[in-house]
Amino acid sequence: MAGFEWITFLSDYGLDDNFVGVCHGVIARTAPAVRVIDITHTIEPQGVRQGAHVLLQSLPFMPRAVHLAVVDPGVGTRRRPVAIEAGDSALVGPDNGLLVWAADTLGGIRRAHEITNRAYQLERISSTFHGRDVFAPVAAHLALGLDLAEVGPALDPAGLERLASSESRVDGGRILGEVVLVDHFDNLQLNIDRGQLGKLGIRIGDRVDVRIAGRRHRMPFAETFGAVPTGRTVLCEDSFRLLCVAVNQGRAAELLQANAGDPVVLGRAAG
Amino acid sequence: MAGFEWITFLSDYGLDDNFVGVCHGVIARTAPAVRVIDITHTIEPQGVRQGAHVLLQSLPFMPRAVHLAVVDPGVGTRRRPVAIEAGDSALVGPDNGLLVWAADTLGGIRRAHEITNRAYQLERISSTFHGRDVFAPVAAHLALGLDLAEVGPALDPAGLERLASSESRVDGGRILGEVVLVDHFDNLQLNIDRGQLGKLGIRIGDRVDVRIAGRRHRMPFAETFGAVPTGRTVLCEDSFRLLCVAVNQGRAAELLQANAGDPVVLGRAAG
Amino acid sequence: MAGFEWITFLSDYGLDDNFVGVCHGVIARTAPAVRVIDITHTIEPQGVRQGAHVLLQSLPFMPRAVHLAVVDPGVGTRRRPVAIEAGDSALVGPDNGLLVWAADTLGGIRRAHEITNRAYQLERISSTFHGRDVFAPVAAHLALGLDLAEVGPALDPAGLERLASSESRVDGGRILGEVVLVDHFDNLQLNIDRGQLGKLGIRIGDRVDVRIAGRRHRMPFAETFGAVPTGRTVLCEDSFRLLCVAVNQGRAAELLQANAGDPVVLGRAAG
Repeated sequence: MAGFEWITFLSDYGLDDNFVGVCHGVIARTAPAVRVIDITHTIEPQGVRQGAHVLLQSLPFMPRAVHLAVVDPGVGTRRRPVAIEAGDSALVGPDNGLLVWAADTLGGIRRAHEITNRAYQLERISSTFHGRDVFAPVAAHLALGLDLAEVGPALDPAGLERLASSESRVDGGRILGEVVLVDHFDNLQLNIDRGQLGKLGIRIGDRVDVRIAGRRHRMPFAETFGAVPTGRTVLCEDSFRLLCVAVNQGRAAELLQANAGDPVVLGRAAG
Repeated sequence: MAGFEWITFLSDYGLDDNFVGVCHGVIARTAPAVRVIDITHTIEPQGVRQGAHVLLQSLPFMPRAVHLAVVDPGVGTRRRPVAIEAGDSALVGPDNGLLVWAADTLGGIRRAHEITNRAYQLERISSTFHGRDVFAPVAAHLALGLDLAEVGPALDPAGLERLASSESRVDGGRILGEVVLVDHFDNLQLNIDRGQLGKLGIRIGDRVDVRIAGRRHRMPFAETFGAVPTGRTVLCEDSFRLLCVAVNQGRAAELLQANAGDPVVLGRAAG
Repeated sequence: MAGFEWITFLSDYGLDDNFVGVCHGVIARTAPAVRVIDITHTIEPQGVRQGAHVLLQSLPFMPRAVHLAVVDPGVGTRRRPVAIEAGDSALVGPDNGLLVWAADTLGGIRRAHEITNRAYQLERISSTFHGRDVFAPVAAHLALGLDLAEVGPALDPAGLERLASSESRVDGGRILGEVVLVDHFDNLQLNIDRGQLGKLGIRIGDRVDVRIAGRRHRMPFAETFGAVPTGRTVLCEDSFRLLCVAVNQGRAAELLQANAGDPVVLGRAAG
């Protein structure tokens, strides 16, 4: 790797503090020519799983970069800080599963190193803000062209922490899955794709039953929100090629009292 | 046009998701040298009218740029995606009225083209996220120097969608208008300017009656918030040269239970 | 000074409006090569004291820059707009105490000038938005290399407004202080440091009584949040080297009903 022009940055630091700004400052001091793209900083506090989903879905739209991601409930404990090479990019963050799905989608992990070399971290390392003290400076040094092996000892990629994947499955005439994310418009993103609907023989215009957290809702499968009247529920493919439940010009999560993590059972509507 | 150094970006995508970050990524992949100024992303969801007001008021302070604006309740339906040349800038977004007031203020629409050419869009176009798939990549290509005519067929500027303008008027001894925006400090911006007050003979220091959504409030017309005691209501000229109702070190919208869109009747206070 | 590559920007403008974006636009028009780091814009409205604390804590992590800071309840009244040289950086903002602690930490005020020269401000100056009309353009001109003395007449640094500092003190077997900030994770930052605990003979692992706003809480003094079970309260050193009260994977301010400004009495737990 010959350095990077971009660092992308995802965290659960929120926008109510100076945490994100301070990390930008640390990067600017080390690697002033590098530019930073903030993917999002409103991952729910300590929501490693949500962060991993959002990172995975965002990276296909990002330039070649060091992808800095910090959702880190274990900060200050034994979890390892890691730097990963995947495809032609690098990832930096805690070894808690946050980075691995994204690394897979970038082409798989080529090598991984534990971050131990103090030369590339801030002089004083706090026990609670490794984004500033460890991860941002290491990302900046990698952007400057530092070889990944310099940050610390090699790790076996197979030994990195991995989140249990929330895979959906077709079971008889039903698809079992879950609500993965609730977005800003209150749409419910499912871990179910259009191909699975096809296996049930469900096509555009068909009506489906969607059971979310035990409550049943009936709605059409349509190309877009606008295919149903204002205020009506609809199942469609979202912009990340996953199915989502939406309300045309309304708020599905609120209307259906649904949350990320809720189990979903989807099938053809009877009658 | 010989390309642009800047893209400005306004949307209703909010800051709770990766939507804004992903659009930045798409721009960076296409036009890495271009820099992006985020005007705001907290237009109320699908608030085309609010977005049009904020865009109009912001552009006089922006550099020459491609102005990318996405508030798009009709995404995925028949509304047209458009690129507009106005003054020495360009605007990109949906043809729903969002862009036209701003184009007027930039010097009027010189030409408009419907965005149809797939060469300048992402390979896969979702039905719900045209900001990422259509508008951001087209804005990036225009910044690189693409001629506007390359994005698709010319449109008659007179045929673009236009929002009914919320003009105020002097009627006898009163001014009839509305609350245009509520800002972060909870000040109420009116579509009434100082010149109209002058027609009623109202000067700095005079007391006025301001009827908002049927409720009457009496307050002085002053140069600045600080001219009244803490917690008191005041009418003054805001930073965008429109009249606003404010509470010194307080929150006017909350205190007066007022909202954007509320009708306003303003007159000299009796007695 | 030979100009600056960076402007940092802190304000109470929030993220619900175009205020921050418009200031970025004004900077881009004047000094297009300069880059802006947003420290934070969610200082509580008109929270000069909070803004001064956050600026003070952020600057050690920022590159050499013009530090633009606007929390300005006195906008439009007699308070003076000022530009300050401190260390190898500059600060621009209102003379209400916001900048002075930060200037001290940068190495002390070398010179200060009142901003009066209209040549470096926007042509029209509103009475309510000096961030856009006065401070951002002056910061941009300083970044371009303008000498500080050009902005207006010299001021005696000793005559600048200063906030009463909220110093803590050891009094017998107790430490008297206050809650300085509540962060995004709802941790309570105190104006008490580890050295003061040492004077009371309190070491890692000891139990302490922390009285906040009259309510007493008992908790261990530990190296990190993770040293206590999930949901338990802990006193530890935060990333800015101040003591903080936290709840492991929980929200301390909510649980303890505490707010910035609350008085704190800290001592060794009896028994």
